[in-house]
Amino acid sequence: MRYCVFCEIAAHREPADIIAETEHSMVFRNRLRWVPVMLLAIPKEHRSQAELWADMGEVGELAVRVAQEQCPRGFRLLSNSGYDGMQSQDHAHVHIIGGQFLGEYA
Amino acid sequence: MRYCVFCEIAAHREPADIIAETEHSMVFRNRLRWVPVMLLAIPKEHRSQAELWADMGEVGELAVRVAQEQCPRGFRLLSNSGYDGMQSQDHAHVHIIGGQFLGEYA
Repeated sequence: MRYCVFCEIAAHREPADIIAETEHSMVFRNRLRWVPVMLLAIPKEHRSQAELWADMGEVGELAVRVAQEQCPRGFRLLSNSGYDGMQSQDHAHVHIIGGQFLGEYA
Repeated sequence: MRYCVFCEIAAHREPADIIAETEHSMVFRNRLRWVPVMLLAIPKEHRSQAELWADMGEVGELAVRVAQEQCPRGFRLLSNSGYDGMQSQDHAHVHIIGGQFLGEYA
Protein backbone atom coordinates (compact mmCIF):
# COMPACT_ATOMS: atom_id res chain seq x y z
CA MET A 1 0.00 0.00 0.00
CA ARG A 2 1.29 3.46 -0.92
CA TYR A 3 1.74 6.29 1.54
CA CYS A 4 -1.44 8.40 1.40
CA VAL A 5 -1.34 11.94 2.75
CA PHE A 6 -5.13 12.09 3.08
CA CYS A 7 -5.08 8.93 5.24
CA GLU A 8 -2.41 10.61 7.39
CA ILE A 9 -4.46 13.80 7.73
CA ALA A 10 -7.58 11.74 8.57
CA ALA A 11 -5.61 10.01 11.33
CA HIS A 12 -4.22 13.34 12.64
CA ARG A 13 -0.66 12.22 11.88
CA GLU A 14 -0.07 14.96 9.25
CA PRO A 15 -0.91 18.58 10.04
CA ALA A 16 -3.90 20.17 8.33
CA ASP A 17 -6.21 23.10 8.89
CA ILE A 18 -9.25 21.03 9.84
CA ILE A 19 -12.54 22.89 9.38
CA ALA A 20 -15.01 20.16 10.38
CA GLU A 21 -14.89 16.54 11.42
CA THR A 22 -17.35 13.73 12.08
CA GLU A 23 -16.70 10.10 12.96
CA HIS A 24 -16.17 9.06 9.33
CA SER A 25 -15.60 12.34 7.43
CA MET A 26 -13.39 15.41 7.52
CA VAL A 27 -13.13 18.80 5.82
CA PHE A 28 -9.75 20.55 5.75
CA ARG A 29 -8.19 23.45 3.88
CA ASN A 30 -6.50 22.76 0.54
CA ARG A 31 -2.92 24.02 0.28
CA LEU A 32 -3.79 25.57 -3.08
CA ARG A 33 -4.93 29.22 -3.10
CA TRP A 34 -6.50 29.58 -6.55
CA VAL A 35 -9.71 31.06 -5.09
CA PRO A 36 -10.43 32.45 -1.59
CA VAL A 37 -12.12 29.27 -0.31
CA MET A 38 -10.56 25.91 -1.28
CA LEU A 39 -11.48 23.04 1.02
CA LEU A 40 -11.42 19.25 0.72
CA ALA A 41 -14.09 16.88 2.06
CA ILE A 42 -12.94 13.28 2.48
CA PRO A 43 -14.08 9.99 3.95
CA LYS A 44 -11.54 9.05 6.64
CA GLU A 45 -11.36 5.53 5.27
CA HIS A 46 -9.28 5.15 2.09
CA ARG A 47 -11.65 4.73 -0.85
CA SER A 48 -11.52 5.52 -4.57
CA GLN A 49 -13.44 8.39 -6.16
CA ALA A 50 -15.78 5.86 -7.81
CA GLU A 51 -16.44 4.14 -4.48
CA LEU A 52 -17.23 7.49 -2.84
CA TRP A 53 -19.62 8.56 -5.60
CA ALA A 54 -21.39 5.19 -5.52
CA ASP A 55 -22.04 5.77 -1.81
CA MET A 56 -21.50 9.45 -0.98
CA GLY A 57 -23.23 9.24 2.40
CA GLU A 58 -22.18 11.70 5.07
CA VAL A 59 -19.24 13.11 3.09
CA GLY A 60 -21.75 14.94 0.87
CA GLU A 61 -23.77 16.06 3.88
CA LEU A 62 -20.69 17.50 5.60
CA ALA A 63 -19.39 19.06 2.37
CA VAL A 64 -22.59 20.97 1.66
CA ARG A 65 -22.99 22.09 5.27
CA VAL A 66 -19.46 23.52 5.43
CA ALA A 67 -19.80 25.03 1.95
CA GLN A 68 -22.98 26.88 2.97
CA GLU A 69 -21.26 28.21 6.10
CA GLN A 70 -18.03 29.28 4.37
CA CYS A 71 -19.51 30.47 1.06
CA PRO A 72 -22.90 32.10 1.67
CA ARG A 73 -22.97 33.63 -1.85
CA GLY A 74 -22.52 30.26 -3.54
CA PHE A 75 -19.94 27.58 -4.23
CA ARG A 76 -18.97 24.65 -6.42
CA LEU A 77 -18.54 21.05 -5.23
CA LEU A 78 -16.51 18.80 -7.52
CA SER A 79 -14.51 15.62 -7.85
CA ASN A 80 -11.83 14.95 -10.45
CA SER A 81 -11.21 11.46 -11.81
CA GLY A 82 -8.38 10.24 -14.00
CA TYR A 83 -5.99 12.07 -16.28
CA ASP A 84 -8.55 14.24 -18.10
CA GLY A 85 -9.94 15.38 -14.73
CA MET A 86 -6.45 16.16 -13.33
CA GLN A 87 -6.96 13.81 -10.36
CA SER A 88 -3.77 13.90 -8.25
CA GLN A 89 -4.78 11.97 -5.10
CA ASP A 90 -6.16 8.42 -5.07
CA HIS A 91 -7.98 8.91 -1.76
CA ALA A 92 -11.56 10.00 -2.52
CA HIS A 93 -12.21 13.72 -2.06
CA VAL A 94 -14.68 16.44 -2.94
CA HIS A 95 -13.37 19.95 -3.57
CA ILE A 96 -15.35 22.83 -2.07
CA ILE A 97 -14.49 26.07 -3.87
CA GLY A 98 -15.93 29.56 -3.50
CA GLY A 99 -15.42 32.98 -1.98
CA GLN A 100 -15.61 34.73 -5.36
CA PHE A 101 -17.60 34.49 -8.59
CA LEU A 102 -16.36 31.21 -10.05
CA GLY A 103 -17.25 31.62 -13.73
CA GLU A 104 -17.87 28.78 -16.14
CA TYR A 105 -17.22 25.25 -14.97
CA ALA A 106 -15.64 23.81 -18.12
CA MET B 1 -44.60 26.26 -7.99
CA ARG B 2 -42.48 27.37 -10.93
CA TYR B 3 -42.23 25.51 -14.22
CA CYS B 4 -39.12 23.31 -13.97
CA VAL B 5 -37.58 21.98 -17.17
CA PHE B 6 -35.73 19.21 -15.32
CA CYS B 7 -39.02 17.98 -13.80
CA GLU B 8 -40.47 17.94 -17.33
CA ILE B 9 -37.50 16.00 -18.70
CA ALA B 10 -37.71 13.55 -15.76
CA ALA B 11 -41.38 12.98 -16.59
CA HIS B 12 -40.63 12.54 -20.32
CA ARG B 13 -42.77 15.57 -21.17
CA GLU B 14 -39.84 17.61 -22.53
CA PRO B 15 -37.48 16.07 -25.08
CA ALA B 16 -33.94 15.23 -23.98
CA ASP B 17 -31.14 12.96 -25.12
CA ILE B 18 -31.45 10.48 -22.25
CA ILE B 19 -28.26 8.47 -21.66
CA ALA B 20 -29.35 6.40 -18.64
CA GLU B 21 -32.35 6.10 -16.39
CA THR B 22 -33.30 4.30 -13.18
CA GLU B 23 -36.50 4.47 -11.15
CA HIS B 24 -35.47 7.64 -9.33
CA SER B 25 -32.57 9.08 -11.37
CA MET B 26 -31.72 10.12 -14.90
CA VAL B 27 -28.70 11.18 -16.96
CA PHE B 28 -29.25 13.27 -20.09
CA ARG B 29 -27.13 15.37 -22.40
CA ASN B 30 -26.63 19.04 -21.58
CA ARG B 31 -27.50 21.44 -24.41
CA LEU B 32 -24.18 23.22 -23.82
CA ARG B 33 -21.19 22.09 -25.89
CA TRP B 34 -18.23 23.59 -24.02
CA VAL B 35 -16.42 20.23 -23.91
CA PRO B 36 -17.07 16.99 -25.85
CA VAL B 37 -18.99 15.27 -23.02
CA MET B 38 -21.46 17.40 -21.03
CA LEU B 39 -24.14 15.39 -19.22
CA LEU B 40 -26.49 16.08 -16.33
CA ALA B 41 -27.40 13.58 -13.59
CA ILE B 42 -30.59 14.42 -11.68
CA PRO B 43 -32.96 12.93 -9.15
CA LYS B 44 -36.37 12.69 -10.85
CA GLU B 45 -38.02 14.23 -7.81
CA HIS B 46 -37.60 18.00 -7.49
CA ARG B 47 -35.02 18.68 -4.77
CA SER B 48 -32.54 21.47 -4.03
CA GLN B 49 -28.78 21.09 -4.53
CA ALA B 50 -28.32 21.06 -0.74
CA GLU B 51 -30.94 18.32 -0.34
CA LEU B 52 -29.23 16.22 -3.00
CA TRP B 53 -25.79 16.59 -1.45
CA ALA B 54 -27.14 15.74 2.00
CA ASP B 55 -28.47 12.48 0.54
CA MET B 56 -26.77 11.80 -2.81
CA GLY B 57 -27.89 8.17 -2.97
CA GLU B 58 -28.29 6.59 -6.38
CA VAL B 59 -27.78 9.85 -8.31
CA GLY B 60 -24.07 9.66 -7.47
CA GLU B 61 -23.95 5.98 -8.32
CA LEU B 62 -25.53 6.54 -11.73
CA ALA B 63 -23.41 9.63 -12.41
CA VAL B 64 -20.10 7.84 -11.81
CA ARG B 65 -21.16 4.76 -13.78
CA VAL B 66 -22.12 6.81 -16.86
CA ALA B 67 -19.03 9.01 -16.49
CA GLN B 68 -16.75 5.95 -16.50
CA GLU B 69 -18.50 4.61 -19.60
CA GLN B 70 -18.50 7.89 -21.54
CA CYS B 71 -15.14 9.28 -20.37
CA PRO B 72 -12.66 6.40 -19.94
CA ARG B 73 -9.69 8.81 -19.73
CA GLY B 74 -11.20 10.75 -16.84
CA PHE B 75 -13.90 13.26 -16.00
CA ARG B 76 -15.11 15.84 -13.52
CA LEU B 77 -18.34 15.64 -11.51
CA LEU B 78 -19.61 18.94 -10.10
CA SER B 79 -22.54 20.85 -8.72
CA ASN B 80 -22.95 24.62 -8.71
CA SER B 81 -24.81 26.41 -5.93
CA GLY B 82 -25.87 30.03 -5.77
CA TYR B 83 -24.65 33.12 -7.60
CA ASP B 84 -20.91 32.57 -7.14
CA GLY B 85 -21.29 29.02 -8.47
CA MET B 86 -23.36 30.17 -11.50
CA GLN B 87 -26.27 27.88 -10.57
CA SER B 88 -29.01 28.38 -13.17
CA GLN B 89 -31.49 25.58 -12.37
CA ASP B 90 -33.12 25.04 -8.97
CA HIS B 91 -33.67 21.32 -9.56
CA ALA B 92 -30.69 19.41 -8.13
CA HIS B 93 -28.18 18.25 -10.70
CA VAL B 94 -24.63 16.97 -11.06
CA HIS B 95 -22.64 17.92 -14.16
CA ILE B 96 -20.57 15.18 -15.78
CA ILE B 97 -17.90 16.72 -18.00
CA GLY B 98 -15.07 15.13 -19.96
CA GLY B 99 -13.93 13.95 -23.36
CA GLN B 100 -10.82 16.13 -23.29
CA PHE B 101 -8.17 17.29 -20.80
CA LEU B 102 -10.17 19.55 -18.50
CA GLY B 103 -7.43 21.66 -16.96
CA GLU B 104 -7.64 23.38 -13.60
CA TYR B 105 -10.94 23.32 -11.74
CA ALA B 106 -10.95 26.87 -10.37
